Amino acid sequence: MEENEILAWIAQSVKACPSVPIGVGDDMAAVRLEPRTGTGTNLALLKMDQALDQVHFDLRQHTPCAAGRKAVNRCLSDCAAMACIPAAILIAVALPRTADMTMMRELFKGCQAAAAAFNCPIVGGDTAIWDQRLAITVAAMGLSDQPVRRSGARAGDALCVTGKLGGSILGRHMDFTPRINLAHRLAGALNIHAMMDISDGLAMDLPRLMAASKTGASIDGSWVPIHEDAQLLARRDHQSALYHALCDGEDYELLFAVDFDDARQLVLFDRDVPISIIGRVTAAHDELVLVDDHGQIQSWPKGGWEYKGDGRQ
Amino acid sequence: MEENEILAWIAQSVKACPSVPIGVGDDMAAVRLEPRTGTGTNLALLKMDQALDQVHFDLRQHTPCAAGRKAVNRCLSDCAAMACIPAAILIAVALPRTADMTMMRELFKGCQAAAAAFNCPIVGGDTAIWDQRLAITVAAMGLSDQPVRRSGARAGDALCVTGKLGGSILGRHMDFTPRINLAHRLAGALNIHAMMDISDGLAMDLPRLMAASKTGASIDGSWVPIHEDAQLLARRDHQSALYHALCDGEDYELLFAVDFDDARQLVLFDRDVPISIIGRVTAAHDELVLVDDHGQIQSWPKGGWEYKGDGRQ
Repeated sequence: MEENEILAWIAQSVKACPSVPIGVGDDMAAVRLEPRTGTGTNLALLKMDQALDQVHFDLRQHTPCAAGRKAVNRCLSDCAAMACIPAAILIAVALPRTADMTMMRELFKGCQAAAAAFNCPIVGGDTAIWDQRLAITVAAMGLSDQPVRRSGARAGDALCVTGKLGGSILGRHMDFTPRINLAHRLAGALNIHAMMDISDGLAMDLPRLMAASKTGASIDGSWVPIHEDAQLLARRDHQSALYHALCDGEDYELLFAVDFDDARQLVLFDRDVPISIIGRVTAAHDELVLVDDHGQIQSWPKGGWEYKGDGRQ
Repeated sequence: MEENEILAWIAQSVKACPSVPIGVGDDMAAVRLEPRTGTGTNLALLKMDQALDQVHFDLRQHTPCAAGRKAVNRCLSDCAAMACIPAAILIAVALPRTADMTMMRELFKGCQAAAAAFNCPIVGGDTAIWDQRLAITVAAMGLSDQPVRRSGARAGDALCVTGKLGGSILGRHMDFTPRINLAHRLAGALNIHAMMDISDGLAMDLPRLMAASKTGASIDGSWVPIHEDAQLLARRDHQSALYHALCDGEDYELLFAVDFDDARQLVLFDRDVPISIIGRVTAAHDELVLVDDHGQIQSWPKGGWEYKGDGRQ
């Protein structure tokens, strides 16, 4: 059973509903708050994400605090993807029977630090104890009148990513900054046609953006910003650094489509986070092209991070 | 580690926030949607609940469909407790590695049937696979301008419950109707001062309502509506049927406080669901009194359903 298979089945099983302008298949769902009329915010953006022990973190090497922080940050990264303001967080924990109040406190400290960094209140949740491993589930509500969807990319747009990709497994996957502030600044300065966060790797996530926008893409491999961690992994396992940048996942950077002229102004947009043009949106629906250093067309890598359970490390 | 201990610690750890008029400690949290002004609904009610295999259901005897239905209904029961309209459901599942698409489909069918019964759209969620047991986490967003809180009970009020209590373990805990429609009718017809749903048993939940309202209560044991299932269990294990009605939990009925005069009109309020006056709110903060058939004062039972993991059945 593959994640994409499950997602596809769920997407076609859920009925369309007039109060839900954005349903399954984007980074967050949107629920209309005022079907009649109103002056305030009229969309609630909703998202839920799990972080499971020995899948998304590993308590044998990570602290409960780091696990809690990651669980919340994963959800906040989706708020960045929609460029919405996180307004509330809920946290459910299924605690192993060996858990004590110290572990619970540490876990919650991590959750709170992550939420507080974006002034997002933790408003509730649920705790239960079982004889299985720790599961942390986080739901986020964001508010926005104009969330940025996955579906607005147009042929000719530039495709851009924030930060550098690959090798997050060396540590960044546990400790990253959701790009909320950057997303708001980008959405305020430019007309972003489509955006998502890169959680499963560009190799798996770019096809999702393209499918939602009914477009294709041509990516120049030499333009993909490769993280030093990807270089390091490449030296160890003899995969290419580009392969790691495309397939490793858990980058939690933003992938977005804008007019090419807008994209050109982004080189110095942020002092700390580089923004790179990595290619172009094309009209060929679902066709993904990867061009290498020598101008040769390569097949799009099949990799990307799927929920495989153990063996993550 | 006890549930109440965890809850108390979380409640005091979460900072007050002006955009969160109802935080941790009620059936749902409320988040203000329009801090300035507005004509539409101005509160989003949020809740998250877990249903874990061999804690809240048991796949060795229950179908995935029944598990999914229960997981969603538990959350909808909280919407009833606040008398709000369920507007969106999110579902996260951590699937055991042995799960296949058939199980996933069955599970989702149960979720969908429960949500559809109240016209509540399922708007998103998350799936992951691990080598542990099935965990289903459900988040609900409800909408209301005037949610009914736990904190409004006044000395002299009648305390009422819907339905009959006890013995849910014989089957009702897997298949119950969240009292959403009844809650809306009650809230439309009466001024309900305080309300909650009975999920952990009256023995544990009544003290929570009283603590929130800073009152006490006097309950007449002979007025507590005892379910036939509680009678059946009592014959088996020689506990009293009243003990089962107070302590078994997972009734998912409503407990509420109203003016005594209003309460008297409730006898025939609903054709299908009996409503019973079980006692009175008293001014003695946190003091709970149980009066038996002979007018003798009994100590309040210490029982109630806590998350103990295995051995639930």
